[in-house]
Formats: sequence, structure tokens, C-alpha cells
Amino acid sequence: MNWQTIFKGTGFTSISPDAIEILKDSLFCVDGKGMIAKILQPGEKEYSPLLSQAARENRLVELKPHQYFLPGFVDLHIHAPQWPQIGTALDLPLNEWLNSCTFPLEARYEDTEYARQVYTHLVDTLIANGTTTALYFATIHKESSYLLAEICAEKGQRGLVGKVVMDHQEENPDFYRDASPEEALADTEEFIQQVQELGKTVPQGVYPVVTPRFIPSCSDEALAGLGRLAAKYNVHVQSHCSEGDWEHNFVRKRFGKNDAAALNDFGLLREKSVMAHSVLLDRDDRALFKKTGTAVAHCPLSNAYFANCVAPIKEYMSEGLEVGLGTDISAGYSPGILQNIRQAVTSSRMLEDGTDPSRSPEDRGRRDSRITLKEAFYLATAGGGEALSLPVGKLAPGYAFDAQVVDMTAGNPPFLILPEMDRDILFQKVLFGADPEHIRSVYIQGRKVL
Amino acid sequence: MNWQTIFKGTGFTSISPDAIEILKDSLFCVDGKGMIAKILQPGEKEYSPLLSQAARENRLVELKPHQYFLPGFVDLHIHAPQWPQIGTALDLPLNEWLNSCTFPLEARYEDTEYARQVYTHLVDTLIANGTTTALYFATIHKESSYLLAEICAEKGQRGLVGKVVMDHQEENPDFYRDASPEEALADTEEFIQQVQELGKTVPQGVYPVVTPRFIPSCSDEALAGLGRLAAKYNVHVQSHCSEGDWEHNFVRKRFGKNDAAALNDFGLLREKSVMAHSVLLDRDDRALFKKTGTAVAHCPLSNAYFANCVAPIKEYMSEGLEVGLGTDISAGYSPGILQNIRQAVTSSRMLEDGTDPSRSPEDRGRRDSRITLKEAFYLATAGGGEALSLPVGKLAPGYAFDAQVVDMTAGNPPFLILPEMDRDILFQKVLFGADPEHIRSVYIQGRKVL
Repeated sequence: MNWQTIFKGTGFTSISPDAIEILKDSLFCVDGKGMIAKILQPGEKEYSPLLSQAARENRLVELKPHQYFLPGFVDLHIHAPQWPQIGTALDLPLNEWLNSCTFPLEARYEDTEYARQVYTHLVDTLIANGTTTALYFATIHKESSYLLAEICAEKGQRGLVGKVVMDHQEENPDFYRDASPEEALADTEEFIQQVQELGKTVPQGVYPVVTPRFIPSCSDEALAGLGRLAAKYNVHVQSHCSEGDWEHNFVRKRFGKNDAAALNDFGLLREKSVMAHSVLLDRDDRALFKKTGTAVAHCPLSNAYFANCVAPIKEYMSEGLEVGLGTDISAGYSPGILQNIRQAVTSSRMLEDGTDPSRSPEDRGRRDSRITLKEAFYLATAGGGEALSLPVGKLAPGYAFDAQVVDMTAGNPPFLILPEMDRDILFQKVLFGADPEHIRSVYIQGRKVL
Repeated sequence: MNWQTIFKGTGFTSISPDAIEILKDSLFCVDGKGMIAKILQPGEKEYSPLLSQAARENRLVELKPHQYFLPGFVDLHIHAPQWPQIGTALDLPLNEWLNSCTFPLEARYEDTEYARQVYTHLVDTLIANGTTTALYFATIHKESSYLLAEICAEKGQRGLVGKVVMDHQEENPDFYRDASPEEALADTEEFIQQVQELGKTVPQGVYPVVTPRFIPSCSDEALAGLGRLAAKYNVHVQSHCSEGDWEHNFVRKRFGKNDAAALNDFGLLREKSVMAHSVLLDRDDRALFKKTGTAVAHCPLSNAYFANCVAPIKEYMSEGLEVGLGTDISAGYSPGILQNIRQAVTSSRMLEDGTDPSRSPEDRGRRDSRITLKEAFYLATAGGGEALSLPVGKLAPGYAFDAQVVDMTAGNPPFLILPEMDRDILFQKVLFGADPEHIRSVYIQGRKVL
């Protein structure tokens, strides 16, 4: 067997949207390319000889009691430049929040030194939160957007980065927009080529992403051009889609149709497309997503503040849509996917039951909307991998060894662990209770990055 | 001026439900009883001499840059015996959750060794989360309930502890209920006397609490007797009130009135009463709360799972009701009041906007329901103090020095702090972003407990 390092320990991984597998005291055999070649269970014939050999050759990484492997998290929606304002200004409606806080901040990334300081800190923070694959909006600036890709490359994180396009002359502030559709497209194409070149030397991969901010901020010409670029280079696409009432209605007014249909007309719904939020999708929108392989980046923390309702994720999942999770930094107040796993479950309960005590129970909620903790875990890991069409998000042969080691003995006090608690209980406790201080180390593509 | 220790640093405290005061580089002068005698600002005449004297006499505690004092948190609703099951079994409806998980677990606290192990770990965890005052439900067992009060006393936490009463012959399982109303009342009275005796020697105070579990689990006789005991000893009272549809309807069926009216008839709504959840209060219920000085323990995390809707806290606050926050361990998945501050804001937004995307915006939410981060901070600190009629929850003269030191330089990486961020911004970042690892030390009644 072709292997370079053996990781020994108990791992938790999704095997389907609603079920996990507990890989007890297993050997995760990782090859020279950082891929999981094989997983051996105690009792299998090769187990003991391989373990001895790896130990002898100093190629064994072994977990201590109550340390567990989880797949690294996939974060499908991050505005990297907004990192300095995380946890602030959440009282404003979306369009005001954009114009008075966010755009002035993003405009600062013309300064690559500011960008370097913020992006370095952000990537470090995301890794410390267990995020091994991250889909980023940068800004309109080609240079600092490329810098973000370089920082991911250096730090070992699998980064997918978009230079943002927002060229609409009326809908964007003078101080922060692409000069013209031509320039936006030329910059995007150059950015794609540069990042693809960079990616050739990066084991875990870095990828360029076609990134119209959202329909309101882009001209028709830019949207159409971006669709063409996505096809020409077969790259990922990201944008916002039907995030809340304001945006949804804005697009309906401009095109007489929903976001999904409009984006599709411009060639922007593709197998490797990820659409943030997608809260207000109707039946036709969902059919379009499914047909094109477009994924939903569900951002439950952000949505509570800016989306005016809860995306019916249970419905999306049962219809077979691809769904993953996003932090939506900084509209979401936390950089952690763990916090979004928790809020995804919590919000789904609040969708199912409704919220207003003055309504009768029958008139309050939306039946059968809850998702379980295991489903939310799936979204955070395997679902994210599927959304990006990358072999990540599972502890399984053929997947990249992207893993975080959660240590239940960390913290002061550490987790309470009693004899009556089986591993399924401990798994739930980790997902509901772990903080970054419990994430002891992180591996991406087999390489230790924390 | 009478002082024993000077704490020097910048503190954040509520001065009203919607405003905070930033006490920059202040001297918090704490007397021999652990009370804040005076707070001096730079520039005041006494400031420099006092600072020098305290340093000279080795009675100065000085914060480092980007460490901040916050008032300790007040947690108004904790089921201490449920600590082992936190973060698990959240998929069940309330009555099933009680019968199949919770009651069997609580029954184990007949074993005081089990109780000692769990309660010690719980109090340590709460202190590590910045909780300086805690209102606990224990179990029906007199001995282990008293043990919890002792552990709080020892560890320096201000604990208010109730021996739970649940004597109803049909509504409780055979393996876990008080033998009779007489025995429940006798045990409660003995417990009150014991804890009051213990409290005499405890600087920060420990207090007994009259604790009918909730109306469904108690006989009329027990409820009436508990009301008499509350009056006789002038002690705190706690119970659950109108938590969700099931409980609310159960009480209406039994008494033909809402929880609040029924509890009041039994003499259980009093100045020192705290009623958990209180989600489904109608106008009359709220008037009763206000008239009697009864407080609401708002538990937003728990409510998302078990209450079927969101308590309209903004409305309660504007009507002048006393409101604080509770974790509701273990129906709430986190032991942290910080997480409940965040969810209180988040849930209030979801109440205001509604959750169901298939409804029109007009038919979705409940207007003017949002609370701000500062209001949630008020609930977590000063509001909790008012609820308990104790001088805690503010950094102000006449209040106990209950404080936590939040260190923004802790963590790996630490918080991103940039020159453009003023202290109001940093305050928001702490409340939305701090974890236990940032809580560097905790003081209760002037004494260092972490």
C-alpha cells in the first residue's frame, strides 16, 4: 500500500446526510499527495504490522485519549475584507450596512499592506476554527485578492478566492466600484490566470472564483461576461442569491424574474457554482439549482440578521439540492463553522415552530423543517465538499486528509466525561460544546497547519 | 475612604437597559466586604495618591492592555443535575425529554458522590464562563441539594439553590418524586433553614430557593405550602412558567387559568420570584408579574428547542418587567451566558422578521421586537441582579465587586485589534466573539475565584 503517514485515532465522519460513522481506533493511511489511501480497523490483518512499521519509521501520528478526528470544515461563504468589522454594526438593514460600513471598509484593500495584515490574521483564525477549505469573496482589487490566494497557499489552507465584480455605475458608490465592465472582466480574467498558475505549485490547491457580488451591483454586460469566463476556464462561481426581501424584489423589478433564473440566463449557474443564502427560492429556482448542480451556501447566523427569514434547508436537502454551510463573515458574527452548525439546527427549529407567541401553534411554524445535528454536521463537511466538487469533507479513502483533532481534555475545566457516555454522546457534546481552544491541531492535505 | 484592594483598568457596565458606560483606566476601590466603595477616574484628585498607595502596599490589581472588566454574569436558570446531558438529546419534545432522559438522570442524585463529581465540575465551568451569580434547580434530594450550596460556598460563587418539589402522584414517575406533599414541604423547610445557616458564614452569600418544578408536577397542597414557606422565610422562589404550548395548555386545563395567575394564587409570585421562560404571558400575566415584582428568566437557546416560540422580551422590557438571562442547562446547549446574550439578540431578530419564507414579509414577523446587543448585556448583568433583588450586575458603588477580566490578547490567534477600533467597537467584539479562553480571571465579592 502506498502511504507516507499513518494517523491513529478515533474519527467521526458523515456517511450520508443523516448518519455518521464512528471509526474507532483506526489507522488513516495517508499517501504522499495527502490523500487517504486506506482506513484500517482494529482486527484487520494489516493493522498491527502497519502500526509497528509506522512507529518504527517515525511516520505515526497517534491521538491521546479523548482526542478525536473530525473532517476539516468547509466554509462556503466568507467576505475576507470584512474581517475587521466582525461582531459589529449588526443593527443596520442590509443596504445601509453595505453603504455606510462595508463598502468604505472594502475600499481600503487597495492598500496591500492593510490587506496582508487582515488576511493573514483571518486565515490563521479560520484554521484555528477547524476550517480547512474556504470560499472567499475578496474585494474589487486584483492585487490584494491575489495576495489572499497567496496567503492561503503559504499557510496550507485550501482557498478558493474571487476578485469581486461590482461595476454598476448607479448602484455602487463612486469610491468603490469597478471602473467599467470591460475593466472588471479584464481584471477577472487576469486574476483567474494568475491564481491558476499559482495553484499548480500548491499541494492543497488554491482556485480562482468568478465572483459577481450580486445582481444589483453588476451591469448586464459584466454578468454576461463573467458567465463566459466561468465557461472558458471552467472555474468556480459564487454570488449571493435571493438573500432577503430587499434584494429579491430588486432583482424581480430589474429582470421580471427571480435571482436564480436571472443568474442562469447569464451562464452563472453551473456545476461548480455556490450561491450564498438562497433563502427565497421558489420551486422553479430550486429545480434550476438542481439541474445545473448549483449549491446553496447556508449561512444561518447571517440570515437571522439580514435575510428576513430562514432558508428551508430540510426541504432543499430532501429535494436533493447540494447544500453546505457558510459563516458569511462579517454579516455572521462568528468565524466558526461550529457556531453555524449549532445555529443551523437552532434556526431550523425556529422555522418549524415559528416564533410569534401571539399566533396559535397551527398558524406559527412550517412543519417538518427541523434538521438534526448530524445533518448540520454533514452540511459543514461532506456537503461543502460536494458543493465545491472537491474530494474533501469525509474521512474516507479517496478524500484529502483534511482533519481537525478535537481534544475534550483541553480547557479549564475540560469537558465532563463520565463512564455512561458513549461515543455518539461525545460526538454531540463536541459539536454543541467545543470552542477553538479544543481544536488541538489541524491537517490539510496531510500536512499539519496548526 | 474605606478600601482594601484597588482594581485598575477599563471596565464596561450597563447604566440603563440600552446604554453602557465605559470606565476608562479607572480605579475600582473594593472594601473589606467585597463591595465597590468608589470608582475613580483619571484626573480626579484622589486618583494618583491612591494608586501609589495601593501599589506600595501591594493591594493593587492592574489590568494589562486590552484586558477589560465586565460585571460577572447572572445566570437565572440552571438545572444543575442535568449537566451530564448537556448538548445531547435535543431532538425530543419537552415531555418525552423529561420522562426518558431527564428524570432518570436526576434520580441518580440520591448518590451524593455522583452529585459531588458533577456539581463540582459544573460550578467550575460556570465560573470559567464568567457566571458569578447562579440560580439553580437541584433535585428532590435534600442532601445533594445542600451539597450544591456547599460547593458554591467553597468555590466562592454566589449560589441560589432550590431543592426541587415534584410530588404529584400521577404526573411524576414512581422512581423520581417526593413521597408526599407533607414530606416535600418538610424537606423544603429543613433545606431552607440549613442553607440560611450556611449562608451566615459565606461572604458572597448562598441562598435557599423555594422550587416547585412546575405546576404540572406539583399537587395543590404542595404549591400552597411552598407559597407559605416563601412568605415565612422571605426567600427566593423559582419555577417554570408558560414555557411552551404543552405546559401552558396543561395548566389551563387543570386550573382554567394561565400559569401566572395560578402561581399567584398559591403565593408564589413575589418580589424575589424568578419564573423561567415565561414565553406565553398574556397582558394580565404580565401585569401580575409587574405588580408582584416577579422576574422573567429568558432562556433563548433552550426556548428554540422547547418553547415553540420566542419570548417577546423587548415588549416585556418596555412594560417595565424585570428580565434576566438563563442558560437553562441542559435544555440550552451551552453553559455560557455569552452564548445566550448572542442568541437573545439573534432570536429577537427572528421574532421581528419571522422565519417562514413562504409568507409575505407583512405576514411573517412581529414588529419592533428586536433587542440590541447592549440590551442583552443588560439582561445578562444588571437585569439579573434586579431579578434577584441583589446588589450585583453593575460596576458601580454599592454593588458587589463581581467581575470578569476579558483578555482580547488571549487565544491563538488573539482578537484582531486595529487602530480604527474604539472601545465601543471592542465591547461589541467581546460580546459577540469571546470564548471561555478569553476570560482570564473572575472575582466574586472582591475575591479571586479564577
